[in-house]
Amino acid sequence: MLTLSSDFGSPYPAAMKGVILHRTDARLVDVSHTLPRQDVRAAAFWLRQVLPEFPPAVHLVVVDPGVGTERDVVAVRAGDHVLVGPDNGVLVPPARAIAPGDLTVYVAEEGDPESDTFHGRDVFAPLAADVHEGGVDRLERDGAFERTDAYETIEFPRPEREGDVVRGTVLVVDDFGNAITNVPGDWIEHHLGEAAIVGDRRVPIRRTYAALDPHEALITIGSHGNVELAVNRGRGSEAFAVGPGDAVVMTLGASGD
Amino acid sequence: MLTLSSDFGSPYPAAMKGVILHRTDARLVDVSHTLPRQDVRAAAFWLRQVLPEFPPAVHLVVVDPGVGTERDVVAVRAGDHVLVGPDNGVLVPPARAIAPGDLTVYVAEEGDPESDTFHGRDVFAPLAADVHEGGVDRLERDGAFERTDAYETIEFPRPEREGDVVRGTVLVVDDFGNAITNVPGDWIEHHLGEAAIVGDRRVPIRRTYAALDPHEALITIGSHGNVELAVNRGRGSEAFAVGPGDAVVMTLGASGD
Amino acid sequence: MLTLSSDFGSPYPAAMKGVILHRTDARLVDVSHTLPRQDVRAAAFWLRQVLPEFPPAVHLVVVDPGVGTERDVVAVRAGDHVLVGPDNGVLVPPARAIAPGDLTVYVAEEGDPESDTFHGRDVFAPLAADVHEGGVDRLERDGAFERTDAYETIEFPRPEREGDVVRGTVLVVDDFGNAITNVPGDWIEHHLGEAAIVGDRRVPIRRTYAALDPHEALITIGSHGNVELAVNRGRGSEAFAVGPGDAVVMTLGASGD
Repeated sequence: MLTLSSDFGSPYPAAMKGVILHRTDARLVDVSHTLPRQDVRAAAFWLRQVLPEFPPAVHLVVVDPGVGTERDVVAVRAGDHVLVGPDNGVLVPPARAIAPGDLTVYVAEEGDPESDTFHGRDVFAPLAADVHEGGVDRLERDGAFERTDAYETIEFPRPEREGDVVRGTVLVVDDFGNAITNVPGDWIEHHLGEAAIVGDRRVPIRRTYAALDPHEALITIGSHGNVELAVNRGRGSEAFAVGPGDAVVMTLGASGD
Repeated sequence: MLTLSSDFGSPYPAAMKGVILHRTDARLVDVSHTLPRQDVRAAAFWLRQVLPEFPPAVHLVVVDPGVGTERDVVAVRAGDHVLVGPDNGVLVPPARAIAPGDLTVYVAEEGDPESDTFHGRDVFAPLAADVHEGGVDRLERDGAFERTDAYETIEFPRPEREGDVVRGTVLVVDDFGNAITNVPGDWIEHHLGEAAIVGDRRVPIRRTYAALDPHEALITIGSHGNVELAVNRGRGSEAFAVGPGDAVVMTLGASGD
Repeated sequence: MLTLSSDFGSPYPAAMKGVILHRTDARLVDVSHTLPRQDVRAAAFWLRQVLPEFPPAVHLVVVDPGVGTERDVVAVRAGDHVLVGPDNGVLVPPARAIAPGDLTVYVAEEGDPESDTFHGRDVFAPLAADVHEGGVDRLERDGAFERTDAYETIEFPRPEREGDVVRGTVLVVDDFGNAITNVPGDWIEHHLGEAAIVGDRRVPIRRTYAALDPHEALITIGSHGNVELAVNRGRGSEAFAVGPGDAVVMTLGASGD
């Protein structure tokens, strides 16, 4: 199985599929080709949520604002999975989520790509196909890969709390408009049914969107386990006027409605 | 074969695929993940058009504004097909279109899902995979399912006509901008080549978009057999200023152009 | 292998897949369903880039503004590939790119389609499936196809140069906002590191987007080998205020920055 993730939109991912299908009969599964564009941190967040759901696979990941520059090409083995992509940190959070503590990083030869602007097609797709067919072990024996400890990583900002005041950061906004923060759900779990002060509004904290009337704002715990700012049948990012990178301050312990 | 339909956008559907691929080697086919968001009636309309085109399959359908509430989880057997999703009515119109008069509804155990906000991943995806592997018969024998006659359905609004005046409702707007109504095509078929009055404009009734000059409005019969308000190489929804739920009054019998 | 390309958005492509899967177990690969809407030339450009990357396959292509009119239904054999779609020229540039000089065009019987507005489902999908199963040879012997030399083609506009002045046309804008022209990359390759005058601005000519600071405009050679107007981590189409069909005049030989 070989999954594909990118920020390419359409139709560039199809070029990668064509290249891959010359080299392998693997089942191909699209994860997403609308990852937040050239936003390595947001892509890492999403892939950390989604890739651990898969059975063992090779995961091709191309979010690569540095295409054509000196950044390395890497394969990250995480348990029985291998992630292939640019060495800009995007692979590490999902790899750690797949197999905590069981992670090896390899640098691959980039070869002499046909273009300087589309390494998804010219470098990463053939490499992912080769890893699927040969595995990193054989490729290491063949000299195509070399282990390294000097690889890029991405760290997400850490939330803080002091008494009832929680300070977090919006990491991504999903397609429903939910503003997903870095605040762990268990920081608010015992306040379910109550409310929080966010800016100058009192916002109910609830387990489900539908606990509120349509178009009412709420704070909830998303499927990723993080606190999100949401609106039942609406867009939390608009109601709270926040986007990726924005700070969020929640004062817990307000009485419920 | 297992098809997937949702209003999730990206990348949440990939999490469902990962979960499914842990449980089955079935061929997966994406129907759509951009069904009108949390609009159960519009989703039912689209799936009624598309799912009957498929050979026998398990159809996973997640348009679920009531996620996390008390709504049931159901499987609907329609002939050799099974639809799996929330009991909010979205499954019934496509099931009736697949196998009119041959429909059995089962309630499934919801179990103890990991999240309250993403039952697509935590409840429906594993259930659809299990139905694919075991069938509803075996699951019924195993006690995982129970037949029910108390299930939700969706009824589409009925169009009316009185003499030459037809009153309908826009059900959905497709990606081309065609405003698709609930008026059956055969109500206007004998007026092809003529025109209708819609609001204060005279609109040609034609078999094909290209029968009109580019950017000219027309009334036609779509591939679903319903009357639609369209513009050749343009967006009917904008030319007629209508959207889902809006009333449309057409006076037939105007002379053609 | 059977690939699918259209300008249908969603969910209409799923109806085509259902029809196809009734007739063949072929691997299905989506190329794109968001090709520029009803823009035959832009679709031909993209497919010329992407389809040659695939191993031998049947390529179903439905960008068909003339649906329901007298336009023919054609299959184009290009080497070991076959392209199936409307006879509006969209198939010929990709066919020529797949197998230059080895191209045969066949007209197919259109039959009596169920609709006048969705030949993707009613005509092209079953035909592509039949070609996948039987090949054009057998279908020609069966009388379902007839060779023709009278088929539509699309010619792209030709760029011009006179001394240091290059005159081109924007063919398409990709999802990153890069404005891709018809100017061949080798016309500017020896100016890499220098700059060009475009309108009243001096624009660096570089091998990679990341050679410039974020949000800086540049001219580069895209993965298709054509000159493109781009912005590092931004949208070239907006910075240069150009879209498909617009003229671009570049005066080369300006000194670099």
